[in-house]
Amino acid sequence: MGRILRVDMSRQSIRWEECPSRWAHLGGRGLSAAILSEEVTPTCHPLGRDNKLVLAPGLLAGSSAPTSGRICAGGKSPLTGTIKEANAGGTAAQLLARLGIKAIIFEGEPGQATLHLLHVAREEARLIPAGDYRGLGNYELSARLHREHGPDVAILSIGPAGEMRMSAATIAVTDRDGNPSRHAARGGLGAVMGAKGVKAIVVDAGGASLPRAQDPAAFASEVREFTRVMKEDPRTVNLAKYGTAGVISYVNRPEIASMPTRNHRAGVFARAGEISGQRIAAMAPERNIEMHACMAGCPIRCAIIFRDARRNVVTSALEFETLAMLGSNLEIADLDAIARMDRMCDDIGIDTIEIGNALGVAMDAGVLPFGNAERAEEALRAIGEGTTLGRVLGQGTVVTARVFGVARVPAVKGQGIPAWEPRTLKGIGVTYATSPMGADHTAAMAVMKGLNGESAVAASRDLQVLVALQDTCGLCIFSNAPAEVIARMLNGWMGSTYTGQDVLELGRWVLGQEIAFNRRAGISEAEDRLPSYLYEEALRVPSGNAVFDVRLPRSAEEALGL
Amino acid sequence: MGRILRVDMSRQSIRWEECPSRWAHLGGRGLSAAILSEEVTPTCHPLGRDNKLVLAPGLLAGSSAPTSGRICAGGKSPLTGTIKEANAGGTAAQLLARLGIKAIIFEGEPGQATLHLLHVAREEARLIPAGDYRGLGNYELSARLHREHGPDVAILSIGPAGEMRMSAATIAVTDRDGNPSRHAARGGLGAVMGAKGVKAIVVDAGGASLPRAQDPAAFASEVREFTRVMKEDPRTVNLAKYGTAGVISYVNRPEIASMPTRNHRAGVFARAGEISGQRIAAMAPERNIEMHACMAGCPIRCAIIFRDARRNVVTSALEFETLAMLGSNLEIADLDAIARMDRMCDDIGIDTIEIGNALGVAMDAGVLPFGNAERAEEALRAIGEGTTLGRVLGQGTVVTARVFGVARVPAVKGQGIPAWEPRTLKGIGVTYATSPMGADHTAAMAVMKGLNGESAVAASRDLQVLVALQDTCGLCIFSNAPAEVIARMLNGWMGSTYTGQDVLELGRWVLGQEIAFNRRAGISEAEDRLPSYLYEEALRVPSGNAVFDVRLPRSAEEALGL
Repeated sequence: MGRILRVDMSRQSIRWEECPSRWAHLGGRGLSAAILSEEVTPTCHPLGRDNKLVLAPGLLAGSSAPTSGRICAGGKSPLTGTIKEANAGGTAAQLLARLGIKAIIFEGEPGQATLHLLHVAREEARLIPAGDYRGLGNYELSARLHREHGPDVAILSIGPAGEMRMSAATIAVTDRDGNPSRHAARGGLGAVMGAKGVKAIVVDAGGASLPRAQDPAAFASEVREFTRVMKEDPRTVNLAKYGTAGVISYVNRPEIASMPTRNHRAGVFARAGEISGQRIAAMAPERNIEMHACMAGCPIRCAIIFRDARRNVVTSALEFETLAMLGSNLEIADLDAIARMDRMCDDIGIDTIEIGNALGVAMDAGVLPFGNAERAEEALRAIGEGTTLGRVLGQGTVVTARVFGVARVPAVKGQGIPAWEPRTLKGIGVTYATSPMGADHTAAMAVMKGLNGESAVAASRDLQVLVALQDTCGLCIFSNAPAEVIARMLNGWMGSTYTGQDVLELGRWVLGQEIAFNRRAGISEAEDRLPSYLYEEALRVPSGNAVFDVRLPRSAEEALGL
Repeated sequence: MGRILRVDMSRQSIRWEECPSRWAHLGGRGLSAAILSEEVTPTCHPLGRDNKLVLAPGLLAGSSAPTSGRICAGGKSPLTGTIKEANAGGTAAQLLARLGIKAIIFEGEPGQATLHLLHVAREEARLIPAGDYRGLGNYELSARLHREHGPDVAILSIGPAGEMRMSAATIAVTDRDGNPSRHAARGGLGAVMGAKGVKAIVVDAGGASLPRAQDPAAFASEVREFTRVMKEDPRTVNLAKYGTAGVISYVNRPEIASMPTRNHRAGVFARAGEISGQRIAAMAPERNIEMHACMAGCPIRCAIIFRDARRNVVTSALEFETLAMLGSNLEIADLDAIARMDRMCDDIGIDTIEIGNALGVAMDAGVLPFGNAERAEEALRAIGEGTTLGRVLGQGTVVTARVFGVARVPAVKGQGIPAWEPRTLKGIGVTYATSPMGADHTAAMAVMKGLNGESAVAASRDLQVLVALQDTCGLCIFSNAPAEVIARMLNGWMGSTYTGQDVLELGRWVLGQEIAFNRRAGISEAEDRLPSYLYEEALRVPSGNAVFDVRLPRSAEEALGL
């Protein structure tokens, strides 16, 4: 059941393989972890011929399970040196599932600096020279590819950042409007794609039929019930109304203090009201700003289609992380400027979280001023153009800090720290320290207030296991799907007989594979820690000064109960 | 016996301490390893307040033992993240020994970006504001400090590279002519000094008497005999005649192929004859080029004082590594240009080996052309000026490769590979892979031809132990002092009762301390390896194609028999 499409970029050859039975129960992040563990030497250079890039829909992709269309990109990360999984919404996973493809694996490296696109359709897959697309941003590229290959294809692509092998480069995925607004953003997998000489993958599911559930009635009933529960969840309601930006008014409260400000030096941004979800909602009628679902069948519709004063679309998916990391963290409160920067990042194909950190560090070093949107936009243009400064910033937080001699580095395992603040929301600090991905909030959003000590460790652990499972199924973390529901949906879809405990065991197995890869890659337990400023530099909150004070287990394995 | 001078840069306070008895038998590298192991958190940021900078003369410093005046600089390296020891000749160690100082320890960090110099004399040590010296190159700085503090002081200083916290920044030490030509060059300890806000240390031994041997007659007799043996050693004779440059005509032979060419892609440089020691010797009479001893009492006198066509001194200590890494490795065969570049590096305070690698990688990436001395000199000026490109190059090989997206990286544990070629001289490859310092030829010059497999591992191991001992005594590796002679000299000098085996045990202990520090810092066994190009990319030699094919032990501990 299912096929693997293996693309050797050294020989520019393509092979269809039946999915081996040992991988049949895996998809998305879990399948990627299995492939990379079996096939990639953990000490290899991430941009060399021995690394591989895996693109894998989740187990529930192509089904009517809500939010099940996320696609996983996996490989050894040039940013962190760890195994890496970054997933994105958009339409690609659902189309790949219709073609019966469990994973595309890119391997080898082109002898010269050639560029190709991979066209995948029902009858065949082929590599097409793509030298003409060299240097194109994701917006122009996807527009051209849609013109050439039809409006219904899904496109995964890299912008100039991926071509230049920047460690913060993303893989863009087109949304339902055909815009490259969804990104497998973290860890620089776009640079791995660039190193393979692949500019884009065009997925054409024309003529392919929808996959069917093994037990259609049971599956449909599970999906109906779960969709109902999800729609009633107040978290869903809030996301549907304000997008992820809705959280700003909450995290900016003095007692939460999780709105990163001036390179993570404060947790409250005086001008947060100017960039909040509520502010965007208030502007909506006048500017025709709308909420949008990135994939078919998503009942949440959390993406904000942001428009400028002339009602022209600037960007879709204007997210909290972007508003914080390119906004408050740089002391920028100009919503239009942040939206333009978000579009530029999508176009260049670069991670807004990593770049927000890199710019924050550069501002700390005096390379450019805080609070100056024009200068920040100029720096983003420099990234797209590949000036030397642009290439430094495009390599992310740690390299920017190295180049400018900065010792206070907001990063874990080489990856820049997201907006959520570990000194006040301790659970997220545990996630940053112990996730095999480095500082990644989506690995387990343990942001509940009041977690501390053992409860923070336990919450992060349980959530990391659940998220590894959700990522394996291709489910959005905003689905909040619990293990029991996932087990029942999988049983209806695949004919399995999982319990909730069984699927959590699968999540634990995925984490175990990832951490084992990291250990073989040379990532030691000494790196399962946060940077020292989080322990030493107190954040001012009403109850006193907050530092990260959770006693972390000796290793990630211990923290995750592996 | 002996004092420690502890300088807290957070409070700008100085404290004299008696050397604790547990450190009495240590000096130089061994003392530095002990101090760092006891006092520095291995996971700290190298440029943060928790790192320390140790400057320590060797055990035999101040004595008449030939070549015993090398000074050790130690700290956690910003280049490698490992513990680091870099030593240099010059006059500083001998003067510190006359003042009875076993080590200077800089700790803490200045609150603001202040700059100080430390003045050390017989009666007192004091910190003097040094803001006026900001940005000065080592040449102008040492000239001014000599004018202000007298011609007989020794000066340790950093140039702009150290102030800018570049990971390839050196600590310069003045030679007998007062020139800053000797450098504790590798691993970026100049950046640690810069992060402590220290521009220079002025050592004034005026009024201090020479230290005396515990058993003067026995010591004098040992020294006499060892000096005689050393002078008759053909290696010494060759060094005295041609300096380290004398080796070029040997390593450039097709069967040795250890003259790094075009970013380590070839081992034979067609124009090597133009930059060889023999060529320099042939020019000597016309240009008044002379050989020179960097410290009093050295019978080798290996330093070449190079003069231009108008007989003006360009640089002293024009070394093989510099001629290779800034010459053949960049396909530059212009001796005058290389000498100018050497002086620029000394003046900026930056490591010629690391910069030769960084430039080689940048040339590979097309940032500047191979074989163009003018463009290379321009790049060096950019380093001194701190342009963005200069700051990238100044961070060394790995950062330069990251920024320009290069996967073939000639570095081990973050440090650029020296001129000696592991594919043909296998023993040096074992040293690069297993030394706690990363790719460092001086850790054990196991460059004997014909070593292979177990013999290469054994040769590197035995030599690493001996060198750790020599570095602890402050002896130059070119002394070729064997353990038995070192034991007898130490016994005469300190009144100890060592055997040759005892002092080798001391060398092993030093290596053990260093590797244990690295493990706690998170450097894992997976990093005790060479970069993949050395295994995969064959070097053309008459006997076929050579790759590095020694089966390395599982870990550095195993390789070194610890």
